[in-house]
Amino acid sequence: MNGYNTLTERLQIRFPVIQAGMAGGATTPDLVAAVSNAGGLGTLGAGYMSPQHMKEAIRKIKLLTDKPFAVNLFVPEAQVDVPCVQEPIQTQLASIRKRLHMAGGQEAGASEAVFDYDAYQRSFEEQLSVVIQEKVPVFSFTFGVPSPEIMHQLKSNGIVVIGTATHVKEAQILVAAGVDLVVAQGSEAGGHRGTFHGACEDSLVGTIALVPLIADHVSVPVIAAGGIMDGRGMAAAMALGAQGVQLGTAFLACEESGAHEAYKAAVLSSNERSTIVTRTFSGKLARGIVNDFIRQLQPYAEHVPPYPIMNQLTRDIRQEAARQSNPEYLSLWAGQAARLGRRTTAHDVVEKLIHRWQEVVHQMK
Amino acid sequence: MNGYNTLTERLQIRFPVIQAGMAGGATTPDLVAAVSNAGGLGTLGAGYMSPQHMKEAIRKIKLLTDKPFAVNLFVPEAQVDVPCVQEPIQTQLASIRKRLHMAGGQEAGASEAVFDYDAYQRSFEEQLSVVIQEKVPVFSFTFGVPSPEIMHQLKSNGIVVIGTATHVKEAQILVAAGVDLVVAQGSEAGGHRGTFHGACEDSLVGTIALVPLIADHVSVPVIAAGGIMDGRGMAAAMALGAQGVQLGTAFLACEESGAHEAYKAAVLSSNERSTIVTRTFSGKLARGIVNDFIRQLQPYAEHVPPYPIMNQLTRDIRQEAARQSNPEYLSLWAGQAARLGRRTTAHDVVEKLIHRWQEVVHQMK
Repeated sequence: MNGYNTLTERLQIRFPVIQAGMAGGATTPDLVAAVSNAGGLGTLGAGYMSPQHMKEAIRKIKLLTDKPFAVNLFVPEAQVDVPCVQEPIQTQLASIRKRLHMAGGQEAGASEAVFDYDAYQRSFEEQLSVVIQEKVPVFSFTFGVPSPEIMHQLKSNGIVVIGTATHVKEAQILVAAGVDLVVAQGSEAGGHRGTFHGACEDSLVGTIALVPLIADHVSVPVIAAGGIMDGRGMAAAMALGAQGVQLGTAFLACEESGAHEAYKAAVLSSNERSTIVTRTFSGKLARGIVNDFIRQLQPYAEHVPPYPIMNQLTRDIRQEAARQSNPEYLSLWAGQAARLGRRTTAHDVVEKLIHRWQEVVHQMK
Repeated sequence: MNGYNTLTERLQIRFPVIQAGMAGGATTPDLVAAVSNAGGLGTLGAGYMSPQHMKEAIRKIKLLTDKPFAVNLFVPEAQVDVPCVQEPIQTQLASIRKRLHMAGGQEAGASEAVFDYDAYQRSFEEQLSVVIQEKVPVFSFTFGVPSPEIMHQLKSNGIVVIGTATHVKEAQILVAAGVDLVVAQGSEAGGHRGTFHGACEDSLVGTIALVPLIADHVSVPVIAAGGIMDGRGMAAAMALGAQGVQLGTAFLACEESGAHEAYKAAVLSSNERSTIVTRTFSGKLARGIVNDFIRQLQPYAEHVPPYPIMNQLTRDIRQEAARQSNPEYLSLWAGQAARLGRRTTAHDVVEKLIHRWQEVVHQMK
């Protein structure tokens, strides 16, 4: 462990709190820097960002904080045969485009099955070059394992590497690949499942079961994620054997968050039965608040093409829904304890989290 | 709360540990008494027992311990139209009966759709009479809410009442009905989902998300259940706001457990990806280890008749599988952290649980 025994030493942060790298716009430079300035680790969710956009965001973060921060990327999956997008999916998406008064609502889809895997792979490599060129302190990733060459490049540039596991075997694969820390992503977590080994459906393991199992089987510090919204969840995670926690939904409704106002409102008015895990938005299983889009597509779930094909197919719909402030066609990723979310500053989230964590620990004795 | 502030005072037990009332034979009088003698609360899972069998078991428990114990029953659901059992289900069950060399394997099913709801309801009332006549100290239930008359009868006989909730609204319904304690059953839990309000699929909320939410919304002590196997899970549950924990799977492989040897072996060799929630055995959603029965029936899940019809239809198969020691056709209910189970005594499970819990709490400061 390079002489570092604990997560906070390894990451050079004050509190063992990581703001999750939510892709899609929530993790503005303001949010990332605010979390890091509050003593946690902010994360830029750069999965969908262009290299140029990433570079600008990273430089802005550096202007706002001199504390460590992370950048999160999606490791591209191995190329699959790009399937013809099946008729039920084309029909449903066309009907949604029509409902949103989008041009091309009727005939859309014909050319959309074309997907350039080479460009997709190149785009990841370009994103990664930015991480290395900008000497980002911490790199976290989901959806897979970077190649040995990439791991070597990151390590030799002094970048701390965090992988994401949804079961024990994945944690072992990540540690064997050389990650410094492992996120144990419980089934309560909002957004995409990080599963990269075995079926996603078999890997929906609750945080209270997952964290002790992963902690028993790996030698690196474990970060608990999924369903943690306040100091109670943080104290629980530490009791389970985690050395830190990662929270996404808790930061979604923050003032600094770039999440759409309609998305924030949906999160704050949700309850613990509002979410579902679905492939309908992106082709990859993810937890979000049920809305009209999911209700309309879910019956055709078996026809949904794999990620990232489906993600590309639905992008224009999500963008138009955002323009129209219509939460029914946005992807409303959220965890199962989202109802504990609050409208406040990121600094306040971190401060209250730590305060209650310490209070809970104190009361336990 | 009748002057009782804490769960242990209310239940008159030493440690806030409840052994779950697993129906189907695991909870022998020996197991129940051993848990109570170790300072926890043993529970007779009497859901499927005849009143006579219950009476004998309760009397045996009383001979083995002078400590409090509980009896768990299933509240019968409102009568539904008994559907014709559909062809795919009949065909699959017949093929399984044939594979197990059971008589009537071919034509079975024709008369089985007949279900006597009146007898089902009467049977619950007779079971309940035994609980009251025998002055069982604690009564716990799942699948619904007893009528006000029954609640009054239980209370006026000094019986402590525990209900089971899978989301906040259910917890509120139970407290309004007068329960003394609420079990918050997280999605990690093995066996049947306790859901009685809303769809089961919407109520698969992980323990780390569910417990704080329920604790925030009810005034009675909360018992955490689901994914808790050792002192780490227990400390986590208490941090989340629970006053006690309920463990089922942790007691399954105990020497005193009446679970079939093949079932115990399956639990001990499972991992966190081994289980699924399925309606295929009973018509009601339950978490168990995937085996040939589930693999064969799951594709026809939409045709499975509701509980208790399907449960009755599959009973002969489960019984024959037990006779043949064939785990592939037994219902192998287990939670998501089952791989932490051990072959030992119930006393040892309780002792190690408490020891590690105290150790974890000590280390947290």
